[in-house]
Amino acid sequence: MSRSRPVVVIINGPNLNLLGTREKGIYGDKSLENIIADVQTKFPDFDIISYQSNIEGELIDAIQKYGFSALGIVFNPGGYTHTSVALRDVIAAITTPVVEVHISNIHNREDFRRLSLLAPVCKGGVVGLGTYGYEAAVRSFL
Amino acid sequence: MSRSRPVVVIINGPNLNLLGTREKGIYGDKSLENIIADVQTKFPDFDIISYQSNIEGELIDAIQKYGFSALGIVFNPGGYTHTSVALRDVIAAITTPVVEVHISNIHNREDFRRLSLLAPVCKGGVVGLGTYGYEAAVRSFL
Amino acid sequence: MSRSRPVVVIINGPNLNLLGTREKGIYGDKSLENIIADVQTKFPDFDIISYQSNIEGELIDAIQKYGFSALGIVFNPGGYTHTSVALRDVIAAITTPVVEVHISNIHNREDFRRLSLLAPVCKGGVVGLGTYGYEAAVRSFL
Amino acid sequence: MSRSRPVVVIINGPNLNLLGTREKGIYGDKSLENIIADVQTKFPDFDIISYQSNIEGELIDAIQKYGFSALGIVFNPGGYTHTSVALRDVIAAITTPVVEVHISNIHNREDFRRLSLLAPVCKGGVVGLGTYGYEAAVRSFL
Amino acid sequence: MSRSRPVVVIINGPNLNLLGTREKGIYGDKSLENIIADVQTKFPDFDIISYQSNIEGELIDAIQKYGFSALGIVFNPGGYTHTSVALRDVIAAITTPVVEVHISNIHNREDFRRLSLLAPVCKGGVVGLGTYGYEAAVRSFL
Amino acid sequence: MSRSRPVVVIINGPNLNLLGTREKGIYGDKSLENIIADVQTKFPDFDIISYQSNIEGELIDAIQKYGFSALGIVFNPGGYTHTSVALRDVIAAITTPVVEVHISNIHNREDFRRLSLLAPVCKGGVVGLGTYGYEAAVRSFL
Amino acid sequence: MSRSRPVVVIINGPNLNLLGTREKGIYGDKSLENIIADVQTKFPDFDIISYQSNIEGELIDAIQKYGFSALGIVFNPGGYTHTSVALRDVIAAITTPVVEVHISNIHNREDFRRLSLLAPVCKGGVVGLGTYGYEAAVRSFL
Amino acid sequence: MSRSRPVVVIINGPNLNLLGTREKGIYGDKSLENIIADVQTKFPDFDIISYQSNIEGELIDAIQKYGFSALGIVFNPGGYTHTSVALRDVIAAITTPVVEVHISNIHNREDFRRLSLLAPVCKGGVVGLGTYGYEAAVRSFL
Amino acid sequence: MSRSRPVVVIINGPNLNLLGTREKGIYGDKSLENIIADVQTKFPDFDIISYQSNIEGELIDAIQKYGFSALGIVFNPGGYTHTSVALRDVIAAITTPVVEVHISNIHNREDFRRLSLLAPVCKGGVVGLGTYGYEAAVRSFL
Amino acid sequence: MSRSRPVVVIINGPNLNLLGTREKGIYGDKSLENIIADVQTKFPDFDIISYQSNIEGELIDAIQKYGFSALGIVFNPGGYTHTSVALRDVIAAITTPVVEVHISNIHNREDFRRLSLLAPVCKGGVVGLGTYGYEAAVRSFL
Amino acid sequence: MSRSRPVVVIINGPNLNLLGTREKGIYGDKSLENIIADVQTKFPDFDIISYQSNIEGELIDAIQKYGFSALGIVFNPGGYTHTSVALRDVIAAITTPVVEVHISNIHNREDFRRLSLLAPVCKGGVVGLGTYGYEAAVRSFL
Amino acid sequence: MSRSRPVVVIINGPNLNLLGTREKGIYGDKSLENIIADVQTKFPDFDIISYQSNIEGELIDAIQKYGFSALGIVFNPGGYTHTSVALRDVIAAITTPVVEVHISNIHNREDFRRLSLLAPVCKGGVVGLGTYGYEAAVRSFL
Repeated sequence: MSRSRPVVVIINGPNLNLLGTREKGIYGDKSLENIIADVQTKFPDFDIISYQSNIEGELIDAIQKYGFSALGIVFNPGGYTHTSVALRDVIAAITTPVVEVHISNIHNREDFRRLSLLAPVCKGGVVGLGTYGYEAAVRSFL
Repeated sequence: MSRSRPVVVIINGPNLNLLGTREKGIYGDKSLENIIADVQTKFPDFDIISYQSNIEGELIDAIQKYGFSALGIVFNPGGYTHTSVALRDVIAAITTPVVEVHISNIHNREDFRRLSLLAPVCKGGVVGLGTYGYEAAVRSFL
Repeated sequence: MSRSRPVVVIINGPNLNLLGTREKGIYGDKSLENIIADVQTKFPDFDIISYQSNIEGELIDAIQKYGFSALGIVFNPGGYTHTSVALRDVIAAITTPVVEVHISNIHNREDFRRLSLLAPVCKGGVVGLGTYGYEAAVRSFL
Repeated sequence: MSRSRPVVVIINGPNLNLLGTREKGIYGDKSLENIIADVQTKFPDFDIISYQSNIEGELIDAIQKYGFSALGIVFNPGGYTHTSVALRDVIAAITTPVVEVHISNIHNREDFRRLSLLAPVCKGGVVGLGTYGYEAAVRSFL
Repeated sequence: MSRSRPVVVIINGPNLNLLGTREKGIYGDKSLENIIADVQTKFPDFDIISYQSNIEGELIDAIQKYGFSALGIVFNPGGYTHTSVALRDVIAAITTPVVEVHISNIHNREDFRRLSLLAPVCKGGVVGLGTYGYEAAVRSFL
Repeated sequence: MSRSRPVVVIINGPNLNLLGTREKGIYGDKSLENIIADVQTKFPDFDIISYQSNIEGELIDAIQKYGFSALGIVFNPGGYTHTSVALRDVIAAITTPVVEVHISNIHNREDFRRLSLLAPVCKGGVVGLGTYGYEAAVRSFL
Repeated sequence: MSRSRPVVVIINGPNLNLLGTREKGIYGDKSLENIIADVQTKFPDFDIISYQSNIEGELIDAIQKYGFSALGIVFNPGGYTHTSVALRDVIAAITTPVVEVHISNIHNREDFRRLSLLAPVCKGGVVGLGTYGYEAAVRSFL
Repeated sequence: MSRSRPVVVIINGPNLNLLGTREKGIYGDKSLENIIADVQTKFPDFDIISYQSNIEGELIDAIQKYGFSALGIVFNPGGYTHTSVALRDVIAAITTPVVEVHISNIHNREDFRRLSLLAPVCKGGVVGLGTYGYEAAVRSFL
Repeated sequence: MSRSRPVVVIINGPNLNLLGTREKGIYGDKSLENIIADVQTKFPDFDIISYQSNIEGELIDAIQKYGFSALGIVFNPGGYTHTSVALRDVIAAITTPVVEVHISNIHNREDFRRLSLLAPVCKGGVVGLGTYGYEAAVRSFL
Repeated sequence: MSRSRPVVVIINGPNLNLLGTREKGIYGDKSLENIIADVQTKFPDFDIISYQSNIEGELIDAIQKYGFSALGIVFNPGGYTHTSVALRDVIAAITTPVVEVHISNIHNREDFRRLSLLAPVCKGGVVGLGTYGYEAAVRSFL
Repeated sequence: MSRSRPVVVIINGPNLNLLGTREKGIYGDKSLENIIADVQTKFPDFDIISYQSNIEGELIDAIQKYGFSALGIVFNPGGYTHTSVALRDVIAAITTPVVEVHISNIHNREDFRRLSLLAPVCKGGVVGLGTYGYEAAVRSFL
Repeated sequence: MSRSRPVVVIINGPNLNLLGTREKGIYGDKSLENIIADVQTKFPDFDIISYQSNIEGELIDAIQKYGFSALGIVFNPGGYTHTSVALRDVIAAITTPVVEVHISNIHNREDFRRLSLLAPVCKGGVVGLGTYGYEAAVRSFL
C-alpha cells in the first residue's frame, strides 16, 4: 500500500448507500458517490478512498485493512453506532485515528441513538452538520 | 422488477433456516421451504418471494432490494429483533410496509426478548400464533 | 353453555366502546358492533360472542365465565394491557387460550405502552393491523 | 344534554367520599358535598355537576358521558392518578378539557406519587392548594 | 353495626372466587366458602364476615364499610397487591388494622410480584403458608 | 420592609423575560410586565412585587430577601425547576409559603421536565393553565 | 439427633440478642430467651431449639446442622435478610422447610429492606405481627 | 446591531477562561484570546464576537442578546453541558442556529459527561478535535 | 498574592449566608462570620480567607482566584454539591487541594443528597460533624 | 462428516485474526494459527478444526455446520459476546456443547463487557487465563 | 465498665490489619498499632480502645459491647461499608455516637464504593484525609 | 512457610462443605475432600493446600495468610461471590494471583448471580465445567 499522497479512508455503514435516494429533505439529494467526489475535490493533496457496506463484519475487515497505514479514517457507522462492540474493538486495535461522522443530529431522535458505543475510542466526532461533516472530519487530519 | 401479480416478500433472519429440524415440539416439523410453499398455495393471486440469511447486512440488502416495489414484506427477524438498529433504519427508510412475525410467543421467554427494536417502525406484528403468523401477515396486505 | 357451534368470545376493554366515534383517522369509522358483525359474517361456523366493559373487574368476571368452555377468547384489553396483574392472573387460570389484539401499533407510542403484562400468559397476539386483527385472531383458532 | 348554563363537571375518584371524615388536619372538615356546594355558590353562571366513584371503570364511564359536551371537567383522580392508563386514554379521547386537582401536595409524599399518568393529557393541574384547587380549576374555564 | 362478638372481616380480591376449582395442586381443593367456614369454626368468639369481589373499587367500598368498626381485617388482595394505590390509600385512611395474606409464596414467582404496594400500610402479613395464613392472621388480632 | 398592604412577590426565572416575544402560540403575546400589571389590577389589596433573573444565585438572593416577610411568593423557576437543589434549599429555609407556577403543561414535554425538584418544598403548584396560573397562585394566599 | 418429639429450630440472626433491651416501644420488653420459652410453652409436643448468632457463617453452620433432620426451621435473619446469598444457598440446599419471620413490618422502612433475598427459597413468611410471628410460624408446621 | 459583515458569536462557558494555562497536554498552550484571534483570521468575511463567563445566567443573557440576529453561535458550554435545562431552553427559544463544540472527547471520560442536555436543540456538534472544532463549527455556517 | 503566612480559603456556597439565622436546632446559632472568626483563632499561623456566594459561577471565579496559590481550600458547596459539573471541573483544574465540608449529615436526608459530584476530585471530606468540620478540614492541611 | 477422531471446533469471532499483531503486551505474540497448532499438538487424539470470521452471520453458519456432529465447540465470540442474541439462539439450538473462552479478563474492563449474552446457554467458560483458555476448554471435553 | 477517663473505641474492619504492609503509597507505612498509639498520644484525657476483625459478626459483637457505655466510636468498616445492613442495624440500636472514617477517598474509586450503607445512621464521617481521619473523628467527641 | 514444592491453595466458601451430599445431579457425588485429593494426584509437583469455611471473615483471614507466599490461589467463593466487597479488597491487596472457580454455570441461574464482585480483581476464572474447574485453574499456574 505504498502511495505517494497520504490516504484518508471514508467508510460508511448500513443504509448510507441509499443517500440521495431517500428522505431527501433530511439528507439532501446527492448520492454517496457525489459526496465523496466533492470531498476529493476539496482535498487534492489527499488520496480519498471510499468504502460502504451494510455488513458489520465487512466494515471490520475494511477498518483492519486500512487501520495500520492510512493517515485517517472518517467513519459514519449508521445503525451500528449504538450496538457494535466489535467495531469498537477494531477501532481501539488499529493505529490510525478515526473520526466519527453523522449527517443528521442523532441527539434529537430516539433515546437509544444518543450514546455511541464507538465515540469513546474515536479521536472525535462531527454530528448534525450535514454532508459537510465529512469535509470537516477530513480537514481535521491536516 | 415488473411482475404481473403483486409481490409479497417473506424474509427470515438468523437460524430460521433450521425450522423443521430443531425443537420440533415448539416449531413443528415443517421446513421453511414447506411453510413458504403453503403460504403461496393460500394466496394464488400474490407472487410470494422468500429470502433467508443469517447475516444482518444481507437482510438489510434484501429489504433495500424489495422495499421500494413490493406490496408488502413479512419479516421474521429472529435474534436481530432485539439488537439491530440498522434493520430498524432500513425498515424506516423503505416505502413498502413491513409486518413483523414471530412463530413462538417472545413475551414468555427472557426479558430481553420482550422489546422489539423493529416494532415501532413496522406496520404491525403477529406473535405466538405459530407458522399461521406468516399467513395472517400476508393476508393483512389484501 | 351447551352450544352446537364452537364459541369464540371477543372481549374489549376500556374505551373501545368509543370505536367509530373518536379518532376515526386511526381507528376507522366502524362501530364495535359493526366490527363484530363483520367478524361473525366471516366465520359462519363459529358462534361469536361479544362483550365490552370499562371496568377491570367485570372483564375478569367475563373471562372467568367463558374461560373454561369457549374454544378461544380474543381480547383487546385497552388501557389495562399495561397495568393489570389481575387480568393476567385470570388468563393464566382459565383453560381457554387467549389471543391479545391491539388495533393500532402500541409500539410506536409512549414507552409505557410497549410492554403488555398480559402477553406472557396469552397464546399470542396481533398488533397494529387495524380491525383485521380481530379476524386474524379468530382465524388462529381454526 | 341541552342546558342553558355551561356545564362544568367535578369528578372525584377513590376515597374522596371520605373527605371531611378522615385526616381532618390535612383535608379539613368539609364533606365533599359541602365543597361542591361552595364551588357552585362561587360560580352562579355555571351548572356544576358532581360525581364520585371508587370504581375506575365508572369514572371512565362518567368521563365518556360528559366529555363531549361539558365546558370543562375538574378531575381529582385520587389513587388512580399514578396507575390508570385507561383513564389517561379516555381523557385523551374526549373533547372537553380536563384540569387535574389534588388537595394535598402529592410531591412531598412517597416517590410513586410524584408522577401523574394523567397529567400529560390534561390541560393543566392544581396541586397542594387545598379545596381551593377545585375553585381555581373551575375558574380556569372562564 | 352493633354486634355482641368482635368482628373480623376477611376480604378476598380478584380471582380468589376460583379457589378450589383451579390449580388444586397449589391452592388445594377447598372452596373459599369452606375456607372461611373453617376459620369461623376455629374462632368461635369472633364474628367472621367474608367478602369477595373482582372489582377494585368494590373492595375499596368494603374496606371503607368495615374499616372504622371491625376489630381487624384480613385482606388477600390478589393481583391488586402490586398495582393499587387506591387500595393503599383506603387502608391508610381507616382505623381498623389490616393483615395482608397470600396463600402461595409470591416471592418465588415473577419479579413484579415481589413488592406489595399495600404492605407498608398494613400491620403485617403472612405469605406462602397456604390457607393457614387466614387463620394465622385472624389469630394475630387476639 | 414595613408596608401597609400585604406583599406578594412574583419571581420569574430564566428566559421568562422573553415572554410575549417568543413562541406566542404557546405563551401568548403579553410581556411579563403586562402580565404582572394585570395581576396587580386583579388584587388591589395586595402589593405585588415582580422580580426576574436568568441567574440561579440571584433568584436565591431574591427569595432570601422576601422570604421572611412577604405574605406569599409565586415562583416560576423556568429551567431551574428540574436541576436546582440550591433553590430547593432556600425555599425550605424561608418562612413565606411558595406556590410554583408553570405557564405551559410541563408534563407533556420531555421526560426530564416531569419532576420538579422544588415541588416537595413548595406549598403547592399550578401547571398548564397559561398566565392565569399567576392569578390562581396569588388568590391562594387570600 | 434422634429425639422423641419433632424438632423445630428457631434461629435468630444479628442483633436479635438485643431484644428486650433496645427500642422496647417497637420490640417489646421480652428478652429472646423469654420469647422462646413462651413458644415452647405453647407447643408442648414440639422440641423447640433456639440458636442466635451475629455471624453470617455461623448461621449457615446452624442451618446445615439442623436442616436435614428437623421438622421445621423458623428463621429471623435480621440484617442478613437483604444481603446474604450464602444464607439463601443453604436454605435451598437443605430439606427442612424454613419460615422467615420479622417482628416489625420491614415494608414501611427503608426501600432496601423491602426485598428479602431469602424469601424465594423459604416456604413462607410472617412479617410485622410482633413476637406472635414466631408462634404463627411454628404452628404452620403442625 | 446593524453590521456590514455577518456575525458569528463564539461563546465559552465555565473554566474555559483557563485555556492555555492548565492541562496544556490536553488543551494546548494557546489562550482563549489567541484561539479566537486565529479563528477571526481564518474567516475574514465574518465578524467574530467572543464571550466567556463562568455564570450560567450570564451565558443565557448572551445567547438571548445575539440569538435573534447573528448568523450563527458556536457554543462550548463546558460543565453546564450536562446540567443546564435553562441553557437548553434559551437555545430552543432563539432563532440563530447553535453548534456545540467540545475541545476534548467528552465520550471517553466519566459516564455523566456522555449526554449533552443541549445537543438535542443544537443544529449539530463537533467533539474531540481540539481547538480546530471552533473553526469547523464556524465553517458550517458558510 | 504574596503573603507571609500560608493561606487557607474557606468558601461557602448557596444559603450558607443564612447560618445562625435559620434552623438553629440543626446548624447552631453562630453566624458564618463568627464561625470563621473562631477558626482563625484556632489557627493563628494560617491566614484564613472567607468567601460566600449564592451564585455558582462566582464560586468558580473564587476557586480559580485562590486555586493556584493557597495552601488549601475548605469548601462547603451547599446545594451545588449534587448538581454542579462546572464546580467539579474547576476543582480538578486547580492545584490547591480542596476538602469538602458539610455541617449536617447529608446521608440521612433525601436520596439525591447522598452523592456529591465534587467528592471524587476533592482530597477528602468531613460530613455531619457540625461547624467543627471547618476546623477539622483546616487542620488536615497542617 | 464421518471422521475417525472426535472433532473439536475452535471458533474465533471478530478481530481475533489480529492476535499476535496487536497489543502484544496483553495478548502475546503468537498468531491465531500458532495458537491453534499448539492446541492440536496437545490433543493428538482430537481433530481440531479452526474457524475465524469477523461476520456475525458467518459465525452462526459455522456453528450450525458443526453444532450437530462435533464433540465440542470452543468459542471466543469477541465483541459479539455482549450484543448477539442471534449467536445465543444458535448455541441453544445445536446439540454440541459450547465452552466460551476469553483470553483477557473481561471483568476488569468497561461495564458493558461484564455480561455475556452467550454464557447462559454455554456449558461453561474460561476467562482471563490467556491462550491457555483454549487448551483448558478443549480438555473439558475429555 | 467503670473507667475514670471517658472511653473512645476505634474499630477497624476487614483488611485494615494489613495497614503498613500493603500499598504503602496510598496508606502510608504505619501499622494499625502505631496509628492507634499516635492517637492515644494526642488525646491523653481519653481512654482509647482499639479493636479489629475481619469478621462482620465480630464487629457487631464489639459495637454491642461498647455501644451503650463509651463516649464515642470511631469506625472504619472497610469493605463492609457498602454491604452490611447488619452493621447498620447495630449502629442504629446503640446509644453511643459513631463517626465513620475512611483513610482513602472512597469517592474516586469504583461506583459501588460511593454509597455507605452505614453513613445515614452515623453521626458523621471523615473521608480521604489519611490516618489523620482517626484523629479528627476522636476530636469531634470533645 | 518455607516449603520445597510450590504451594497452590484451594479455598472454598460457604456451603461447599456440602459437596457430594446435596444435589448430586448437579454437583456429582464426590466430597470436597475427594475432589482435592484428585487434584493433588494430578499435580504431584505442587503442594495443594485446601481450606473451607462458611464465614466470610475467615476466608479473608485465609487469603491473607497465603496471599503473599503461595504460587496461586484457586477460590470458589460460593454465595459471597456476589456480595463481598471485603473479599474483593483482600484479593486486590495480596500478591498471589487468584483464579475464581464455579462448579455450575452461574450465568443460567438468577440474575443476581451473573455478576461476580471478585472477578475484576482475579486473574481469571473458570465457570460451569464441574469439578474439572479446580484442575483447570491449578494448571493455569504451571
